[in-house]
Amino acid sequence: MSELPVAPFGRLLKKSGATRVSEDAKIELTNALEEIAMDIAENAVILAKHAGRKTVKASDIQLALEDYK
Amino acid sequence: MSELPVAPFGRLLKKSGATRVSEDAKIELTNALEEIAMDIAENAVILAKHAGRKTVKASDIQLALEDYK
Repeated sequence: MSELPVAPFGRLLKKSGATRVSEDAKIELTNALEEIAMDIAENAVILAKHAGRKTVKASDIQLALEDYK
Repeated sequence: MSELPVAPFGRLLKKSGATRVSEDAKIELTNALEEIAMDIAENAVILAKHAGRKTVKASDIQLALEDYK
């Protein structure tokens, strides 16, 4: 965990209309998004391998996102 | 858009087992996660207001995540 920086998620919360944001809320959002990103990334890697590629491409991410939603 | 930095998402893809990752794939993953984060953040702001608070707390994020899944 904790690859993603917390500050940008605090800015997203402000952008979404938050007057104030607790530090815990920023960390919670960051950790949740990191988990979601890992799920999608793992699926994208499987999809790239399935297509006989060593390089993960944008199309792998797109297909992994469809599975996710 | 584009609050979130691209490099950490590239690292998450590597962590997920990717041998190589195209630049487009990193950008695709970053943009997708930013959209998801905005959805969750907007719901969290609504939930905080609903609870009569000006501060978004971790519990708002948690409830917004439940709605999301």
